[in-house]
Amino acid sequence: MCHHCVIESVKAGMLSRRNFFKGSIAAAGAAALAATAAPRPLFAQAPGKAEDLTHELWDNFPTYFGGQQFFAEQKFSFEKDTFNLYEWRISEHTGTHIDAPLHFTADGKSVAELPIDDLIAPLAIIDIRAKADKDPDAQVTPDDIQAWITANGDLPEGAVVAMLSGWGAHVATEKFRNVGDDGKTLHFPGFHVEAAQFLIEQPSVKAIAVDTLSLDHGPSPDFIVHNTWLPSGRYGIEAVANLDRLPAKGATIVVGAPKVRGGTGGPARIFAMV
Amino acid sequence: MCHHCVIESVKAGMLSRRNFFKGSIAAAGAAALAATAAPRPLFAQAPGKAEDLTHELWDNFPTYFGGQQFFAEQKFSFEKDTFNLYEWRISEHTGTHIDAPLHFTADGKSVAELPIDDLIAPLAIIDIRAKADKDPDAQVTPDDIQAWITANGDLPEGAVVAMLSGWGAHVATEKFRNVGDDGKTLHFPGFHVEAAQFLIEQPSVKAIAVDTLSLDHGPSPDFIVHNTWLPSGRYGIEAVANLDRLPAKGATIVVGAPKVRGGTGGPARIFAMV
Repeated sequence: MCHHCVIESVKAGMLSRRNFFKGSIAAAGAAALAATAAPRPLFAQAPGKAEDLTHELWDNFPTYFGGQQFFAEQKFSFEKDTFNLYEWRISEHTGTHIDAPLHFTADGKSVAELPIDDLIAPLAIIDIRAKADKDPDAQVTPDDIQAWITANGDLPEGAVVAMLSGWGAHVATEKFRNVGDDGKTLHFPGFHVEAAQFLIEQPSVKAIAVDTLSLDHGPSPDFIVHNTWLPSGRYGIEAVANLDRLPAKGATIVVGAPKVRGGTGGPARIFAMV
Repeated sequence: MCHHCVIESVKAGMLSRRNFFKGSIAAAGAAALAATAAPRPLFAQAPGKAEDLTHELWDNFPTYFGGQQFFAEQKFSFEKDTFNLYEWRISEHTGTHIDAPLHFTADGKSVAELPIDDLIAPLAIIDIRAKADKDPDAQVTPDDIQAWITANGDLPEGAVVAMLSGWGAHVATEKFRNVGDDGKTLHFPGFHVEAAQFLIEQPSVKAIAVDTLSLDHGPSPDFIVHNTWLPSGRYGIEAVANLDRLPAKGATIVVGAPKVRGGTGGPARIFAMV
C-alpha cells in the first residue's frame, strides 16, 4: 500500500469536505454531549453471560496498510532464565482496537482520556450481513439505523452502535482485507458518512464499532467517516469480533481500552454481557 | 538492578523449593480445577457503578527491574499526515498487567488462553494497609485470608483474591519501587508463599492480584510466589489500582487481558463493577 497516496487523498478530501461538515458537526456534537448529563444505569439487569468481542492478536494479524504491525521478541526464556518474557513492538491501530479522537484531530481526547462511562455502554448492533454478502463495499446508511430503531425502539442512552457485516469470520483469510483486481483497493464494509452524521445528531451516542479494518468502507479514498466521527469527540472500535453471538439490542459492551497516556488508540480487550 | 543476579537467585531457589511444592501443588491444582465445573452467575445482581482498576501507563511507569519498559514513537502526525499514530515498544510486564501461567512455566497457558470465565470474577479484597503502613515488606498470610473469611464468609466461587496494601497511591513516586539503603533491594508488600499455597488449596480461586510491582514482596530473592502460583495454572495481576474504592466483598472484576497469542502476560484494562 502507498501511505503517501492515502495521505494525499485524505488531505484533498478534507479540504473539500471539512468546511461543509465543520459547522453542523460542531453544533450537533455540543448538543449531544450536553444531553448526556442525565445518568443511566450501568446495567438494566444482572447479566447472565459474557461474550468475547476480541480477536486473538498474532504477528500477521491483517492490517489496513498491509504490512506487519505486531512483533514479539523474547527477552527471557524459561529454559535459560526460569521465566518467559517478551517485548512487543506494535502499532496502536492493530488487532481489535480503539480509535480515540486524537487519532484524527490535533488535540482531541487520547485513549487514556476516554471516560469509563463511555467504555461500558449499551450496544446496538446494526446487521447488514445480507447486503454485505452481495457487496463487499456495503455501508451502514441512515436507513439501516432507522430500520433498527423501527424494530427495536430508540437507540439506548449512551450507546455504542456497531456494524455487523459478517466480516469477522474472514479475519484469518485474505478476504479480511480483500484487495481488488487493481492490486491496491480494499473491499470491505464500513459506515457511510451520512450514518456517522446521523449518529452525531443523536444525543449521547458514544462510539461506533465495525467488524472490519476501518470505520470507513474499504474503497474510501479519504477516511471521511474517521474525519467526521472522531473530531466530534467520540471514539471508534475496529475489528471487533463475535457480534453475531449477540442480540441486536440488550447487550452491554465493556471496552478494555488501553490506558496509555497520549495514545491515539490501541489494542483493546472487549467483552459484551447479556 | 542486576538481571543475572535475580535469575541465578531464582534458579537456586527453584532447585531447592520446586520438589518440595511440586507434588502437593499439582494435586491441589487438579482438584481445584475439577471443582470449578459447576456454573456460577456472572453477576449476583445488576451492578450500579464501575471503578477503573487501571493505572495510566506512561513512558516512565515504575518497573520491577528499574529500566524504562514503554516507548512510544510517533509514525504519523496530524499536522503532516492528517492523522496521528504511534508505534509502541513495551515489555509484556509493564503497568497494570497480567502474569499468565506461561510467564513462569515451560508450557503453561498464555495470556490469550485464559478463559473468559476466569477474567470476569468475584473480587475478594484482603486489606493489609495497617501492617503495610508499619512494614513495607509486609505479606498477605494465611491468617489474613482466614480473617477475611471470618468477616465475610467463604471466598466466592471462582474468586480473584486481591491484596490492598495502599501501595497504589505511590505509583508516581519513588516509593512504588522503594529501593533500600543497599541501593538494590526493593521494599513493597506482596503475597506470602503460604498464602499462595492456601489459595491453591481452595477450590476455584482463579487469580491473585497485588497493588504493587510483584506478586512476591519486594525483597523476595527467588520469585517463590510466582513459582508457586503460576505453575498451578492460575494467573496473577500486578500494579492494580483503586482497590480502596471497593468493598472487601461484592465487587466483580472484569480483566481486559490482552489477547496476544503466546503472550506471557501483558498490560490490561481492568474494571470492577459493584
